Amino acid sequence: MSGGGRQGRGPRKPQPQPHGDVIYGRNPVQEALRAGRRHVHEVFATQAAAGEGSFSNPRIVTADVLEAMTGSGAHQGVAARVDPYPYVAADELLAVDDPLIVALDEVQDPQNLGAIARTAEAAGAAGLVIPERRSAEVTAAAAKASAGAVEHLPIARVRNLADFLDEGKRAGNWVYGADQEAETPYEQADWQGGLVLVLGAEGKGLRPRVRSHCDLLVSLPLHGRIGSLNVSAAAAVLLYMAVLRRGG
Amino acid sequence: MSGGGRQGRGPRKPQPQPHGDVIYGRNPVQEALRAGRRHVHEVFATQAAAGEGSFSNPRIVTADVLEAMTGSGAHQGVAARVDPYPYVAADELLAVDDPLIVALDEVQDPQNLGAIARTAEAAGAAGLVIPERRSAEVTAAAAKASAGAVEHLPIARVRNLADFLDEGKRAGNWVYGADQEAETPYEQADWQGGLVLVLGAEGKGLRPRVRSHCDLLVSLPLHGRIGSLNVSAAAAVLLYMAVLRRGG
Repeated sequence: MSGGGRQGRGPRKPQPQPHGDVIYGRNPVQEALRAGRRHVHEVFATQAAAGEGSFSNPRIVTADVLEAMTGSGAHQGVAARVDPYPYVAADELLAVDDPLIVALDEVQDPQNLGAIARTAEAAGAAGLVIPERRSAEVTAAAAKASAGAVEHLPIARVRNLADFLDEGKRAGNWVYGADQEAETPYEQADWQGGLVLVLGAEGKGLRPRVRSHCDLLVSLPLHGRIGSLNVSAAAAVLLYMAVLRRGG
Repeated sequence: MSGGGRQGRGPRKPQPQPHGDVIYGRNPVQEALRAGRRHVHEVFATQAAAGEGSFSNPRIVTADVLEAMTGSGAHQGVAARVDPYPYVAADELLAVDDPLIVALDEVQDPQNLGAIARTAEAAGAAGLVIPERRSAEVTAAAAKASAGAVEHLPIARVRNLADFLDEGKRAGNWVYGADQEAETPYEQADWQGGLVLVLGAEGKGLRPRVRSHCDLLVSLPLHGRIGSLNVSAAAAVLLYMAVLRRGG
């Protein structure tokens, strides 16, 4: 459950940061400060971004320095040096009463991971579970795509996703997998009670072993010529059906 | 309604293309060929991508040439020189019986435009309407983000979005705006019949003039700490509620 990987990418010439990861973007930095789940060592901002007054006493740097620090042009004039992302233990998610948990089977695009985290947080999900290998991690890019939601939403990394699904079942939850070939339309499923919703990778769907560990596979209707929804769009539709049926 | 803008960006050194736009990515090129709504002048592929056999007689080029042609590293070994994007007239969308139409109010991120087009196509929407100014256009990046759905989904550009909403009403449609401050929960709205669903820009929402032209404003529940959904996630939830309530 530890680790977390270095999140700052690219060259880091001008302003050395001896330790820690780097996140960037107004919302990600603001939510890291607001959530308080990982220490924010120092906030960096351009003169212009600092003038907007959202951050107290940021270190003023040029946009070039921010781009070098973050390895991205999407920093919006703000970055922060932070502790590694605080993954939680999967047990913590299963300890919640009747949790709604999202599990991602080898989703490798940090934009999709971030987008799904944002929607899951908005839907009041207990948390998100990702495998340790062949999955996007909670990098600075994922934090940015989540608008900072990853700072609030508990996210766990597990060695083996199928094993986690079994643990989830033993803890009294249903495990539903999203599969466009499934016979059960999503709106006919029972969305109440403890639930782990499993979504597969872009273009590949669920791995057979993960699929076989689901209690139920549900599908979304497709009325167009393109054969699938993006995984983050499918997540949004399914999570909000869960919210609706759970009385939310 | 004409125009369309040049879609190939960045330097175009090695292989000159005298006319036309450039799209890239396996799905976008495949769907452009399949839909047949704009002429595909020539397909370019790396040796490896050509070997997968999805395209007949592509011109073999190196990945470097593709990157220079497309101005992107996301080409997946495939690009094509095509006619400009074939926007339709907004009237065509309103001529459909009881259409479900999505209108975007100054959504400026081509990723969001593409993602929403993909979901709208899957939901069986009649089409998408965007303003001519201060809006993302159907660029190669938007086509890629849509997985090629923009080749099938009719998309219209209008000079004035509020005027289009009035035309929509005169043609017998309801106009619903998504607004997180709205009192009507989205699931309590009537989603049947002709409907124009209006979504606002990231972070800004609907402009006051556009909001005032809506018959009804609907909101999505938010159970987290982040104050909004991404516009493409909101679009997915609302479009699939429409599909569900329209009997799809």
